[in-house]
Amino acid sequence: MAAKLKTAVLGATGYSGLELARLLGRHPRTDAPLLLRRSAETGESDRHAAGLPHIFGNSKANGNSPVQPFSWSALEQRGVELLFLATPHAVSRELVPEAVARGLRIVDLSGAWRLKQEQHRAVYGFKDANAQTAAELTERAVYGLPELNADQIPSAALVANPGCYATSVILALAPLLSAGIVDCDRGIISDSKSGVSGAGKEPTARTHFVSVADNFSAYSVFGHRHTGEILEQLALNSCQLIFTPHLLPIPRGILSTIYVYLKREMTSDEIQGCFHDFYKGKRWVRIFPASSLPQIQFSVHTNYCDLGFCLAQDGRRLVLVSCLDNLLKGAAGQAVQNMNIMYGWDEAEGLE
Amino acid sequence: MAAKLKTAVLGATGYSGLELARLLGRHPRTDAPLLLRRSAETGESDRHAAGLPHIFGNSKANGNSPVQPFSWSALEQRGVELLFLATPHAVSRELVPEAVARGLRIVDLSGAWRLKQEQHRAVYGFKDANAQTAAELTERAVYGLPELNADQIPSAALVANPGCYATSVILALAPLLSAGIVDCDRGIISDSKSGVSGAGKEPTARTHFVSVADNFSAYSVFGHRHTGEILEQLALNSCQLIFTPHLLPIPRGILSTIYVYLKREMTSDEIQGCFHDFYKGKRWVRIFPASSLPQIQFSVHTNYCDLGFCLAQDGRRLVLVSCLDNLLKGAAGQAVQNMNIMYGWDEAEGLE
Amino acid sequence: MAAKLKTAVLGATGYSGLELARLLGRHPRTDAPLLLRRSAETGESDRHAAGLPHIFGNSKANGNSPVQPFSWSALEQRGVELLFLATPHAVSRELVPEAVARGLRIVDLSGAWRLKQEQHRAVYGFKDANAQTAAELTERAVYGLPELNADQIPSAALVANPGCYATSVILALAPLLSAGIVDCDRGIISDSKSGVSGAGKEPTARTHFVSVADNFSAYSVFGHRHTGEILEQLALNSCQLIFTPHLLPIPRGILSTIYVYLKREMTSDEIQGCFHDFYKGKRWVRIFPASSLPQIQFSVHTNYCDLGFCLAQDGRRLVLVSCLDNLLKGAAGQAVQNMNIMYGWDEAEGLE
Amino acid sequence: MAAKLKTAVLGATGYSGLELARLLGRHPRTDAPLLLRRSAETGESDRHAAGLPHIFGNSKANGNSPVQPFSWSALEQRGVELLFLATPHAVSRELVPEAVARGLRIVDLSGAWRLKQEQHRAVYGFKDANAQTAAELTERAVYGLPELNADQIPSAALVANPGCYATSVILALAPLLSAGIVDCDRGIISDSKSGVSGAGKEPTARTHFVSVADNFSAYSVFGHRHTGEILEQLALNSCQLIFTPHLLPIPRGILSTIYVYLKREMTSDEIQGCFHDFYKGKRWVRIFPASSLPQIQFSVHTNYCDLGFCLAQDGRRLVLVSCLDNLLKGAAGQAVQNMNIMYGWDEAEGLE
Repeated sequence: MAAKLKTAVLGATGYSGLELARLLGRHPRTDAPLLLRRSAETGESDRHAAGLPHIFGNSKANGNSPVQPFSWSALEQRGVELLFLATPHAVSRELVPEAVARGLRIVDLSGAWRLKQEQHRAVYGFKDANAQTAAELTERAVYGLPELNADQIPSAALVANPGCYATSVILALAPLLSAGIVDCDRGIISDSKSGVSGAGKEPTARTHFVSVADNFSAYSVFGHRHTGEILEQLALNSCQLIFTPHLLPIPRGILSTIYVYLKREMTSDEIQGCFHDFYKGKRWVRIFPASSLPQIQFSVHTNYCDLGFCLAQDGRRLVLVSCLDNLLKGAAGQAVQNMNIMYGWDEAEGLE
Repeated sequence: MAAKLKTAVLGATGYSGLELARLLGRHPRTDAPLLLRRSAETGESDRHAAGLPHIFGNSKANGNSPVQPFSWSALEQRGVELLFLATPHAVSRELVPEAVARGLRIVDLSGAWRLKQEQHRAVYGFKDANAQTAAELTERAVYGLPELNADQIPSAALVANPGCYATSVILALAPLLSAGIVDCDRGIISDSKSGVSGAGKEPTARTHFVSVADNFSAYSVFGHRHTGEILEQLALNSCQLIFTPHLLPIPRGILSTIYVYLKREMTSDEIQGCFHDFYKGKRWVRIFPASSLPQIQFSVHTNYCDLGFCLAQDGRRLVLVSCLDNLLKGAAGQAVQNMNIMYGWDEAEGLE
Repeated sequence: MAAKLKTAVLGATGYSGLELARLLGRHPRTDAPLLLRRSAETGESDRHAAGLPHIFGNSKANGNSPVQPFSWSALEQRGVELLFLATPHAVSRELVPEAVARGLRIVDLSGAWRLKQEQHRAVYGFKDANAQTAAELTERAVYGLPELNADQIPSAALVANPGCYATSVILALAPLLSAGIVDCDRGIISDSKSGVSGAGKEPTARTHFVSVADNFSAYSVFGHRHTGEILEQLALNSCQLIFTPHLLPIPRGILSTIYVYLKREMTSDEIQGCFHDFYKGKRWVRIFPASSLPQIQFSVHTNYCDLGFCLAQDGRRLVLVSCLDNLLKGAAGQAVQNMNIMYGWDEAEGLE
Repeated sequence: MAAKLKTAVLGATGYSGLELARLLGRHPRTDAPLLLRRSAETGESDRHAAGLPHIFGNSKANGNSPVQPFSWSALEQRGVELLFLATPHAVSRELVPEAVARGLRIVDLSGAWRLKQEQHRAVYGFKDANAQTAAELTERAVYGLPELNADQIPSAALVANPGCYATSVILALAPLLSAGIVDCDRGIISDSKSGVSGAGKEPTARTHFVSVADNFSAYSVFGHRHTGEILEQLALNSCQLIFTPHLLPIPRGILSTIYVYLKREMTSDEIQGCFHDFYKGKRWVRIFPASSLPQIQFSVHTNYCDLGFCLAQDGRRLVLVSCLDNLLKGAAGQAVQNMNIMYGWDEAEGLE
């Protein structure tokens, strides 16, 4: 049997990092991952992770933390080949140049390397120590949406794992845009709703239970960072899309309701065919029969992106519904899927 | 002091009926309402109502039900002048002709008398005993949205209380459409989300806690009954609006996110002005400052409809957010507001 | 008409403070309260309060905060007679001596002045500037549970408003202990469960939505601060009671399940009679018929404490269930009830 | 490789049945299970199961139901050896005699065969066609709690899978009672709380989202059916235990807070040792370090029963906390664990 891949997760105490740790911990082709935190992270989160026996197994429940402070030497000692970054984008932006220089392969779950176009990148306000290196890495980075970019991922040194919202929107629209049947100039609207884990583990007034429960709200209207990814991957201009995120009173899951106008009158069968053709052989996308719509419960705790649609009687107006688990297909699951492709394994390995 | 108005609530064991009973029970100008159920209603709901001491007060907590079977003689004996119907639309359709003939005034919370146009009414499949009477009553019925139709309500014999979704959508759009600034042909989209009480008290697979909690889903896409009301009140044709309802995992509250394209470039101040002008002096609509959006928590347990908006940088694309409590401004509260207007009282009486 | 009472609320941005502000804002015998925050409180909470139009009314929704920094001169200028403290206990402990010296009457919602016995007070670790004054005020403070201490409240300068858990446990047990029918030495157990607002508005890892939703946990076992209040008010020793708090995934409400063994075999009617005798004429306690138990939904958003019980077939083992809204009967509502009694008004004024 | 075991699940459309179908569908030693429903079950549930692509896989999402009506010939044709019953107890009571006569081995998830003593069985009101056969099967049935009865399970024809509440209570108390350190006559109290899936899939007024959300309630006080199991397995008499179930507003999970008095003063280390000794080598019980308590989130979606405790300073009063997933360790997971033991496989097979 081949030696197992040595991996590390930096930011293993956040929601995505914990999911990654859990997935890698039972992946048949990887060793138990090295779990790291930035030294600045509070011991509180660390103790919290240590106190989660359901994640780290019974033997480790009695106290000593499995999450260690980050250092390059810790990575070297362990012989890590693949580094997962579940860190804020500024941290990823800072660490990746050295990591690549050291020969590590990287799957970055942050927004640091997803955007090719300066105009979309501006919202992040990156401050790069070495602008040229950053520009080169931006060029080399592969947007890790396997259903679209599977051919570039195997050879990638740096995979930019897509945003959770972006994954749900892009996967719903790509088949239709690729088929050229959407009247983009009439405007595409994605009304997207996410569970609270998407807002991160930091306790804030906004994530307080009493603020979220029995509530629902829109936020970052005309200004969410995932907008740029969607536009770039779908080759849309910023006037062709309105993307509105909302906060759902549930722990996890995303549902995007997407509105498009078609260039010509079409039938449900044609739309259905368009999706089936595009996702033929794709393991982690499920197409629902016409008029049967996905719900968040169906895909939560799985790596699936579920897609369904309703076509108006006039055959011109289409409502798409796209669901996924923001921590799996929207983050850690997709990161593992990317790893599987990077190393030539079955796309579903460790994800079923 | 003037004698108090005598009212009755038929369907007092449903969610809207219970809210009405509660509101009328403490309204300064009405007697304690006569609470009625159709004889067909199960004793279960009845016992449930009886067992709710928080609604009917301490003295009635010890058993004998305050909800009686419906009969015309019960109404007569009590001297009821105003009858609230919190019944299925078929029941309202059946009872209203006789009620009007008997000289009762009616506020009907069902969809039975909201629609003037046959094309929109078709989805209800009404079976009228006397088609001519039904047609006449349809003509005479006033759509009870006080912010739009306050002049017709004082003299109305039959007020058709608007649907909860419809109220949230119409109040958000009416000022803009009235000002003629919306490009209707480019399409208006209302992505609406409602708490579960909107689906009624009947236990079904769909309203089971395990089906709703941690979940979110779209339903009745291109086919919800409230669509007709919205089109009629806003004078839109069916190709100009997409209305998509969703089920939120919360007990009560509606939020509609509404997308419109403007005919010309505008400023936030202009939009703000448009709303303030239209709702000047209207007690139960709150306009939020630009870019400050309502959330469901702000209006739940009140009779307010909260309105806010964000305008895109191009000044042409507008996202509206409209929130209300589906059982109050969306049902029982609006019914009381209508009563207040019907009898010439202050619109806010009994609702603060 | 008599002049209205001038009140102030310090800590008006916390959950209890907001409820108080709301209740006093519509109380028929008080002016709009002066809303204050300690200068140390972040502007964030302040802005949050300002942004809550549902609390402060439409006219104030457009920006300028109604919550001002605390100062003695602000109180004087307004002519405040009654000061509500919705502050941490250390702050109450610090401010009350001067407030009393200035002739203000006080209702303190914190735990600062509830405990007479040093042994129970120790868990708070008070650091008093003037130990003698503190001792004198401790002596003069009245434990503001109106159903037990209504005779001492009218003349009190300093009312120590009870803890939310303590209210639910004491009101359930007082009638039985007063009747001398409980076998205290066999042990009384209160298994209590509270909604999250009881944990305060501070965002922490523990109050994060993702930590609370779909979860349930016990905390502070054998060590919760409310234990002392319960023991003192019921004249129990610490071996006779186990009090275990739990965190419920709901915003508000407390349910305590309380287990007692009776000294002799009794009937349900006797128990029922014991409760009815004890709470005769008490407006805010509701006794449920035998075997009909209160639920959290019945008392939330009211000032009621609901009490019910089941007696075992052997007539010796009794399960009590006590429910209330932790922010109303467990905090702000009870504070208003205390005010009503302090000023000789009807106990229910402003609370219905 | 050995041929895989052929299994069937009757009642595959209920919550436990669905979990079983899911677990068996990916168990390495069983074929895809034959999924059955009683012919009386409505097609609604059936369609619901069919519509759950996340359970039955992508290929089966397009319509034809995988759940067939029950018949003995269907079992024979498939060559089923092991039959899981996820049926109401009356159905299990009726089918098991013939199933055993036909040489099938059975794991019954209902309460039909759990109780040896007539006094506890009375609450079920069984009506057996053949009283003698029923008595013999009652005698032969093994109570399938592997941590207690692992020696009897391998040879059992009929395994009575324990109740969810009972599992949580018995596993917490067995080590202490076995060690003889509990003062049983002073009374043991289990205050237990369950998520809503424990109440079954049938939509009722009680399981309606609006009845459960933001609520919490006790039920079946002094009368829950699981009481008998607990008493029998722990050899207690009915005066020694009070068991009070409550309904939590969460989909799944049980937490029992259990109160015991010890015969003598003990240390936390002694208690800890008692648990570790008793559960040595037991794969599916996790003992928490002293004063570190399990929460429902830690064990949900796993087959673990988590146990923790706090000892009072007097060393005589003990609060135990026991958590598990009611559909896994409390039902389907434990059923698979029993199967693993019946066939001599590793206890954890298919459950990790």
